[in-house]
Amino acid sequence: MAFHGSTLNAQSSAADCRHLIRSGAWGGPTAGLAARYVQVNLVMLPAAEAGDFLRFAQRNPKPCPVLAVSEPGEFALPEMGDDIDLRRDVPRYRIFEDGQCMAEVGDIVEIWRDDLVTFAIGCSFTFEHTLLEAGIAIRHLDEGRNVPMYRTSIQTHPAGRFGGGMVVTMRPLKAVDAIRAIQITSRFPGVHGAPVHLGDPALIGIADLSRPDFGDAVTIAADELPVFWACGATPQIALLQAKPSLCITHAPGHMLITDRLNHHYATL
Amino acid sequence: MAFHGSTLNAQSSAADCRHLIRSGAWGGPTAGLAARYVQVNLVMLPAAEAGDFLRFAQRNPKPCPVLAVSEPGEFALPEMGDDIDLRRDVPRYRIFEDGQCMAEVGDIVEIWRDDLVTFAIGCSFTFEHTLLEAGIAIRHLDEGRNVPMYRTSIQTHPAGRFGGGMVVTMRPLKAVDAIRAIQITSRFPGVHGAPVHLGDPALIGIADLSRPDFGDAVTIAADELPVFWACGATPQIALLQAKPSLCITHAPGHMLITDRLNHHYATL
Repeated sequence: MAFHGSTLNAQSSAADCRHLIRSGAWGGPTAGLAARYVQVNLVMLPAAEAGDFLRFAQRNPKPCPVLAVSEPGEFALPEMGDDIDLRRDVPRYRIFEDGQCMAEVGDIVEIWRDDLVTFAIGCSFTFEHTLLEAGIAIRHLDEGRNVPMYRTSIQTHPAGRFGGGMVVTMRPLKAVDAIRAIQITSRFPGVHGAPVHLGDPALIGIADLSRPDFGDAVTIAADELPVFWACGATPQIALLQAKPSLCITHAPGHMLITDRLNHHYATL
Repeated sequence: MAFHGSTLNAQSSAADCRHLIRSGAWGGPTAGLAARYVQVNLVMLPAAEAGDFLRFAQRNPKPCPVLAVSEPGEFALPEMGDDIDLRRDVPRYRIFEDGQCMAEVGDIVEIWRDDLVTFAIGCSFTFEHTLLEAGIAIRHLDEGRNVPMYRTSIQTHPAGRFGGGMVVTMRPLKAVDAIRAIQITSRFPGVHGAPVHLGDPALIGIADLSRPDFGDAVTIAADELPVFWACGATPQIALLQAKPSLCITHAPGHMLITDRLNHHYATL
């Protein structure tokens, strides 16, 4: 094995990360690991309920950008990497039955079913990596917090039982950085793409930026604009509300690390 | 000749426009004529003073995007169109001596000099055409006014005697349209490119949006952001301040209509 002890960091390879996670030696969050590689949100649903969800995602690509979908029962995901085991390569999984979280576990080998379809959904880690490379500071990273997330009055386009309001992340930026960030994230439609709003939060139904619905508040300077991107929490909440008989996801912040480079998802 | 009477309009070809202008039958502004074709600002300087100006433009491509430069004394401009006569194809010219406007004339055949270098500078007409195609309304066009222009505290990078503050145009847009407009205009670096600012005008030294320094004020709705683009008035003012011995420009709004399609200047 290529492990250098049992420490993982930003320079680790995606394969090393997955192997250590699979061995059970790493059960923590994946933020900051293997920084050049795409991390994805996972949603697993029985095939009977997967069709509606895929249609929901197709209609809402900004909050729900699907990068890969497995065949039913398939626990490899060759589009995203060699030797991925979807049952064991995420540090922590959450198991939902009828919309209720029933357990949080380190692997799902025992409960795997032959009808499970896995969705790999793009994550803002990818565009944040690219913003940082462009010299744009990201406030919540500098302040050591989770990105602030807000429910909005922007409605998703429903499909079957899936629907509801869009959740957004917010990053405060000076105008010149906001313009540059719009350019950069526009190149990455597979990981939420361009912002959905900037400026006055009340226009999208956010009453108070200092009180996010999820994550942590961050400092906003007087010369900064709040810039809002569609967030992967949108499908998570749609799933809670749709109450499928079974749904397995990664635990928040405990993502699947793939072999795809962040730059792979730049459209140009 | 291919004229259809002496009327020119948005559907006219660039060549028809130039021929009618050259004949003296059209002396008015060119806004709205031959809408698919690039119109350019012209600046003509003696070769001895042209080097500084070109260096100024190279350092300030957003307010001063040079699309073509003639050889000294050349009054064709084959890069921008067939059969262009720079001495006669603009409806009105202004002649400046030592920074003072001495005359406004319909052609410059009599005063042409063999050392004159002509700069063709991109104009926001091109990106406005593309915004309109994308379904983004432009307030000053809807209100039948000139675009509002403002002096700012953003300093240009000086070269020789050329320098001073950047002038910007302002278009009020809803956030989603502002984001889309940033994407679209980013594709057109040859015609001012992406905005230089959006949001709070005080941050770039503009005290009152209702009192533009040039052009006309326009309505700004409560759910709109002011979006600011670098403006070709920047080099005009730099020229007035630098006081070259001779400078010939188009009269405001009386541009050279070229054979280049607006889409020719999209970088992608």
